Amino acid sequence: MRLRNKPGAKAKLQAFPQYVLQHPEQYKGKWHAVFEQQQPLHIEIGTGKGKFIIGMAEANPHINYIGIERQESVIVSALDRLVALELPNVKLLHIDGMDLKNYFKKDDVDRIYLNFSDPWPKKRHEKRRLTHHSFLSLYKDILIDKGCIHFKTDNQQLFEYSLMSFSAYGLLLTEISLDLHRSSFEGNIMTEYEEKFSQKGHRIYRCEVQYS
Amino acid sequence: MRLRNKPGAKAKLQAFPQYVLQHPEQYKGKWHAVFEQQQPLHIEIGTGKGKFIIGMAEANPHINYIGIERQESVIVSALDRLVALELPNVKLLHIDGMDLKNYFKKDDVDRIYLNFSDPWPKKRHEKRRLTHHSFLSLYKDILIDKGCIHFKTDNQQLFEYSLMSFSAYGLLLTEISLDLHRSSFEGNIMTEYEEKFSQKGHRIYRCEVQYS
Ligand SMILES: C[S@@+](CC[C@H](N)C(=O)[O-])C[C@H]1O[C@@H](n2cnc3c(N)ncnc32)[C@H](O)[C@@H]1O
Ligand SMILES: C[S@@+](CC[C@H](N)C(=O)[O-])C[C@H]1O[C@@H](n2cnc3c(N)ncnc32)[C@H](O)[C@@H]1O
Repeated sequence: MRLRNKPGAKAKLQAFPQYVLQHPEQYKGKWHAVFEQQQPLHIEIGTGKGKFIIGMAEANPHINYIGIERQESVIVSALDRLVALELPNVKLLHIDGMDLKNYFKKDDVDRIYLNFSDPWPKKRHEKRRLTHHSFLSLYKDILIDKGCIHFKTDNQQLFEYSLMSFSAYGLLLTEISLDLHRSSFEGNIMTEYEEKFSQKGHRIYRCEVQYS
Repeated sequence: MRLRNKPGAKAKLQAFPQYVLQHPEQYKGKWHAVFEQQQPLHIEIGTGKGKFIIGMAEANPHINYIGIERQESVIVSALDRLVALELPNVKLLHIDGMDLKNYFKKDDVDRIYLNFSDPWPKKRHEKRRLTHHSFLSLYKDILIDKGCIHFKTDNQQLFEYSLMSFSAYGLLLTEISLDLHRSSFEGNIMTEYEEKFSQKGHRIYRCEVQYS
């Protein structure tokens, strides 16, 4: 997504602290205090405009969701969507996924979603990919035992890389689809990028991996 | 491939014992005696008409190859090809891959190729897939430590299944291509099925996995 400033974005994010949590480090280890219901917590890193995480929250009231997005001009659109729907089981965090451990501790999170993560195709940018082993190690430190990552992308190279990265890290590949939209997978909620790229005819790749 | 009898096939296989090894159980643990050169041994299970294994043997004189095929009417075509080329570093075995352990012992084999293995799409036939965990365990018993499997197929479901089966068995995914013919992979030798299905526009999937 192109970086650009949206006038008033910062003020808007601050105007809805019930949706875009302020000073989220205070909830580390006590995320249950944030939600009405004590139920599993699933987070998405790189939520973009929030179509996926908010759609998931609507479809699954028995799960709590947090969408994490570092780009102000983008998360503000997720906020617009959320304000319109007033869901109790989804929050947004305007933070960098690299700093997850400032906000979550071991066992806080039951599942992590990565959708259409920036591919960083150059080898020298490998470390920035959200499926690089340094991120996998970060995720381990906030997930429950046997916690999962669910990953979708249209980017073939990123998907190939990620499968190898998951394998090298020792994660178990429990589910894989090499053409999600022509598979038997039920209840798929599309992301913005997924809608855009599947309309262009791109295949969507998806997998689920589990920590041991 | 359709099962059918080729008249004279059996006699022909027996007429070239230097290419289609007779009583191969005698070579268990001493495959070096069979080849002119003592060099790594790579085997293919389900060799079909031999295009791949014989092409590999031509391209890589420093490797010994064995093509394994249980169907008489098919392996006889591989023999025809081999007779025409007179290569010293490739042999054929008319046996069933299920019985590998009658013919090979631990450390006999450096690498296993599986190409366009029969997909056995029905769940109740899962055990017949050459990437089922019972086969992976068989392969382990004849491979060197850190031995590899190289697998190609156009069958999306079989490839998805196999990636999960490899992962569940604890194999390391060291290489993956989700579109081999549009990848940077060099020196690909096509199999008969690969030629046929890529001409029809099918994608070819490929991976390499390693035992630990
Ligand atoms: C390609 S977009 C995909 C957005 C959305 N998931 C979708 O599928 O439509 C990737 C998003 O991830 C965000 N992002 C990338 N790295 C991030 C990080 N380390 N922490 C938080 N957000 C990140 C980017 O700002 C961008 O909005
Ligand atoms: C679909 S064909 C592919 C042939 C060739 N590999 C190719 O790519 O053109 C599969 C072949 O594997 C052989 N095959 C299947 N299971 C086998 C087994 N257990 N042992 C030996 N050969 C087997 C079949 O007879 C058949 O010739």
